[in-house]
Amino acid sequence: MTDTTDATRAPQAVKGSRIKKGLVVINTGNGKGKTTAALGVLFRAWGREMRVEMFQFLKHTGARFGEKRAADKLGIPIKAMGDGFTWRSKDMDQTQELARQQWENCKQAILSDQHDVIILDEFTYPLHYGWIPVEQVIDTLKQKPHMMHVIITGRYAPDELIEFADLVTEMREVKHPYREQGIKAQPGLEF
Amino acid sequence: MTDTTDATRAPQAVKGSRIKKGLVVINTGNGKGKTTAALGVLFRAWGREMRVEMFQFLKHTGARFGEKRAADKLGIPIKAMGDGFTWRSKDMDQTQELARQQWENCKQAILSDQHDVIILDEFTYPLHYGWIPVEQVIDTLKQKPHMMHVIITGRYAPDELIEFADLVTEMREVKHPYREQGIKAQPGLEF
Repeated sequence: MTDTTDATRAPQAVKGSRIKKGLVVINTGNGKGKTTAALGVLFRAWGREMRVEMFQFLKHTGARFGEKRAADKLGIPIKAMGDGFTWRSKDMDQTQELARQQWENCKQAILSDQHDVIILDEFTYPLHYGWIPVEQVIDTLKQKPHMMHVIITGRYAPDELIEFADLVTEMREVKHPYREQGIKAQPGLEF
Repeated sequence: MTDTTDATRAPQAVKGSRIKKGLVVINTGNGKGKTTAALGVLFRAWGREMRVEMFQFLKHTGARFGEKRAADKLGIPIKAMGDGFTWRSKDMDQTQELARQQWENCKQAILSDQHDVIILDEFTYPLHYGWIPVEQVIDTLKQKPHMMHVIITGRYAPDELIEFADLVTEMREVKHPYREQGIKAQPGLEF
């Protein structure tokens, strides 16, 4: 019989000494649960009355997904990409410019020390596409307040960022109903 | 340059036809984010005014973790293992008996059709240890209401259960600060 300690133990943090440090966390991989786990942290942290904010790097601004509805009810800010954006150049690719602008918002939030947890949702994509230099992101993360947690989600997390992060998890797809059974994403579960 | 569709698309569900079906979801693997992603679903589903409940298969009843604090504030039931348990036999191993009793609670909840999402947190362990027969669980899941989502978390998900489930994700540890840097689990982030 396998030892049962792992199944039934309380989290490590409950006992013993603890180094307190805000972490840089990455949820990457081709599977489900990257954003969802970030939302779980948001839920937990809110339960502890920590100050949380989420920045989304997706195009669909204003979508009334489950997380947005929940966050609105709880007064948790979720800043969609493009919110409050004013066009200054018609020449630039719209999505790139929106992503860069959103990153400026994140940078400000990270450096202003008004939060305990900041989530940069789907942020790996503008890094992967080369729209925002990874070095600039790491440089900003180096200056983050000591106790602040920053969670970055999305596929294709750049190696340099993984190298820099404290906690990295790959969500790996084992079985996926949408491809295998023709089932589409379900409200509540996935958005 | 990589195609940007994946980065910026809205979830599939927003357009197109959709097979509506409650899913059996498993978050397994040795990495972080299994329970946390289940909490993210709980948060989303709550945002959509869906009826959610979480059953925990961990020993530490009554712990005031972040998720419990948040759920209490929102009126989301999280039923810890051992809650309301009355001892009927002193001979049985306590944890096994608690797990079996908790499974009875889950079964009732699954079959009574009062929920849209039910989370069986760390439920893989009593299955893995052979305390609860996997066949019995699958038999119950076969009878679940058509639109109900059931999310099961924990390491060592049994093969039969993975075979039966609709959506299975492995959370794989890529980098873990607690081992590598001696940092313990952080409140808000992990509990």
